[in-house]
Amino acid sequence: MDYSKKAIALHKKLKGKISICSKVPVKNKHDLSLAYTPGVAAVCQLIAKDKKEVFTHTIKANTVAVVSDGSAVLGLGNIGPEAAMPVMEGKAVLFKEFGDVDAFPICLSTQETEKIVETIKLIAPGFGGINLEDISAPRCFEVEEKLKKELDIPVFHDDQHGTAIVVLAALLNALKVVRKNIKDVKVVINGAGAAGMAVAKIFIAAGVDGGKLIMLDSQGAIHSGRTAMNAYKEQIAKITNVEKIKGGLQEALAGADVFVGVSQGNILKPEWVETMAEKPIVFAMANPNPEIAYEAAKKTKIVVFGTGRSDYPNQINNILAFPGIFRGALDARVPAITEEMKLAAAKAIAGLILAKELKANYIMPKPFDKRVAKAVANAVKKSAAARR
Amino acid sequence: MDYSKKAIALHKKLKGKISICSKVPVKNKHDLSLAYTPGVAAVCQLIAKDKKEVFTHTIKANTVAVVSDGSAVLGLGNIGPEAAMPVMEGKAVLFKEFGDVDAFPICLSTQETEKIVETIKLIAPGFGGINLEDISAPRCFEVEEKLKKELDIPVFHDDQHGTAIVVLAALLNALKVVRKNIKDVKVVINGAGAAGMAVAKIFIAAGVDGGKLIMLDSQGAIHSGRTAMNAYKEQIAKITNVEKIKGGLQEALAGADVFVGVSQGNILKPEWVETMAEKPIVFAMANPNPEIAYEAAKKTKIVVFGTGRSDYPNQINNILAFPGIFRGALDARVPAITEEMKLAAAKAIAGLILAKELKANYIMPKPFDKRVAKAVANAVKKSAAARR
Repeated sequence: MDYSKKAIALHKKLKGKISICSKVPVKNKHDLSLAYTPGVAAVCQLIAKDKKEVFTHTIKANTVAVVSDGSAVLGLGNIGPEAAMPVMEGKAVLFKEFGDVDAFPICLSTQETEKIVETIKLIAPGFGGINLEDISAPRCFEVEEKLKKELDIPVFHDDQHGTAIVVLAALLNALKVVRKNIKDVKVVINGAGAAGMAVAKIFIAAGVDGGKLIMLDSQGAIHSGRTAMNAYKEQIAKITNVEKIKGGLQEALAGADVFVGVSQGNILKPEWVETMAEKPIVFAMANPNPEIAYEAAKKTKIVVFGTGRSDYPNQINNILAFPGIFRGALDARVPAITEEMKLAAAKAIAGLILAKELKANYIMPKPFDKRVAKAVANAVKKSAAARR
Repeated sequence: MDYSKKAIALHKKLKGKISICSKVPVKNKHDLSLAYTPGVAAVCQLIAKDKKEVFTHTIKANTVAVVSDGSAVLGLGNIGPEAAMPVMEGKAVLFKEFGDVDAFPICLSTQETEKIVETIKLIAPGFGGINLEDISAPRCFEVEEKLKKELDIPVFHDDQHGTAIVVLAALLNALKVVRKNIKDVKVVINGAGAAGMAVAKIFIAAGVDGGKLIMLDSQGAIHSGRTAMNAYKEQIAKITNVEKIKGGLQEALAGADVFVGVSQGNILKPEWVETMAEKPIVFAMANPNPEIAYEAAKKTKIVVFGTGRSDYPNQINNILAFPGIFRGALDARVPAITEEMKLAAAKAIAGLILAKELKANYIMPKPFDKRVAKAVANAVKKSAAARR
């Protein structure tokens, strides 16, 4: 089905997918005196005296900024802040529907790292969290790093960490299906942008042997000593691919147990899959066309196959992570979303599939499964409590 | 009645007075495909091709940022961005209730002019208008001037122009009551901050003879050649007080037809009122305590008396202006709110009181009169159409 025309008609009719709703009536003088002047002055003074009260008396308690510079929107590339708005509004809709989080889109008319960081810092007082979205790599890494240092509210780049969490959840369950141990598997990640980097890091944090993990960018396998690498690739090269395997995807795949594609459609050839270890796991996340088509994958020896698409089994979708992540972070009022929280979230998502239900074609809960956000939020809160 | 405790309890219970509402259902795959991926990509591409489409397919169509640096919040002074949030949320509630405008509070953790301007410019792509709020003078003038030059959406400093519009509306009707011509009256404005400056300018634009208008700041009457004046006071000195009357409020008031106070409580002495011209008009706008108390004013020769308070007759409240101003500006998609639009808005507000109803104690429509925002919006739209 072609959704394009219908989507355009819907957006034109609605003029935007979110609106501001008032939680207070203002039908008479009395209402006005409580919600606005003179009553509001006492609330202002309370916060002026103790800034922490802003978390308990204002929308900061439940509000997240969805911030993009429009530089890497969906698969559409650098289309700018105005054109990014429909995606950010959509994200706000999902935040509300799945996490009861009030999210507001902020699209920035700059693509300079320093200006992005500065702007987000300056608008932060009214927000309880920052969700970075569709900012191109490596800028997104710098922006996130700097903001984390300077803000006392959670900063989360969904393209990195949301993806990493759901792919890890998928890996945990897929490993159970193929009865392999996370410590033993050889992993290949194709794509070294925002998502690829974060997937590599969370895999290693979850127990994957970094030395056996190979990441590839458009130049081929990343290894220490290679040229044409930014600081982030240099960094990852130090902790991965100890054998310094060179070459392209074909070379990297030989003997691999797991393939994660966060790159582009149809670049994984069926004959290469046959060189992988027995019972391979393939997560082909490129959208809308996966790195290997579902039909082609079915004909190979792949045992567990997942994609980002809703029309195939094992949809691996960020929607399973971000609403619950922020729900938990706001409820626990954490200053940051830690690595432990992300791991706990992935385990919580994976844990929703009971052992008796788990099979090659059913490793992930469905996006509309209402248990997911709650389970993720609880995992975040539990992790936050454990740190205290 | 003391609203403080009740207001604090209400704010704590609600955790903020506004929330984000979704206008689209997301109950299944089909919904998701229209509101989010894959359908949304077509909307993004439409806007990427023609940026103007952002006004017709996103929340920009109806969304205004309520921006403050927290430097001059109500009468509380420089209490900072966090403490300003309850007021900005309240403003958003009023925008929705009275103008059906989606307004979102942005409180900035900077009080530097350049940074305020830069930040607002950078977040502007998703907003259809900017409402500046509670920014201290003279910074507010600079911020507004610079933004007007650089943005193609309306920028409106409510403390200036909202106040100016409603005070002019009050003046127009008060003059009918006392049967004086706007060209003949001698006006005294006490207070040369954001509101005072804007009131002076709109009065002159509406026909008041600037030469006979005297503004006062904390140093006394403003006149050309005086010391201790910022650039904005220098400017106003050139077009007002041609007789270079010196001294304080007492000196300025002799023979005045109109007094406008945007200063502080109880600084207008009853005996000074007696030196004003016959049938004086007094708008004592300081909040919560007017420049002269209602009870004291009643004992003087004042004929028309107005304040910002809801418990006395003739409440002169910004709420009569800003919701309709932005409703009209967004509907007409104007790039700026012009002087003509502000004059038209004031006349529209004044015009809601029919000649047969008009009397000294009834010169202004009530804040909850639903006709007001519509009349103001229509005036703005008519004025916009006339320019095209």
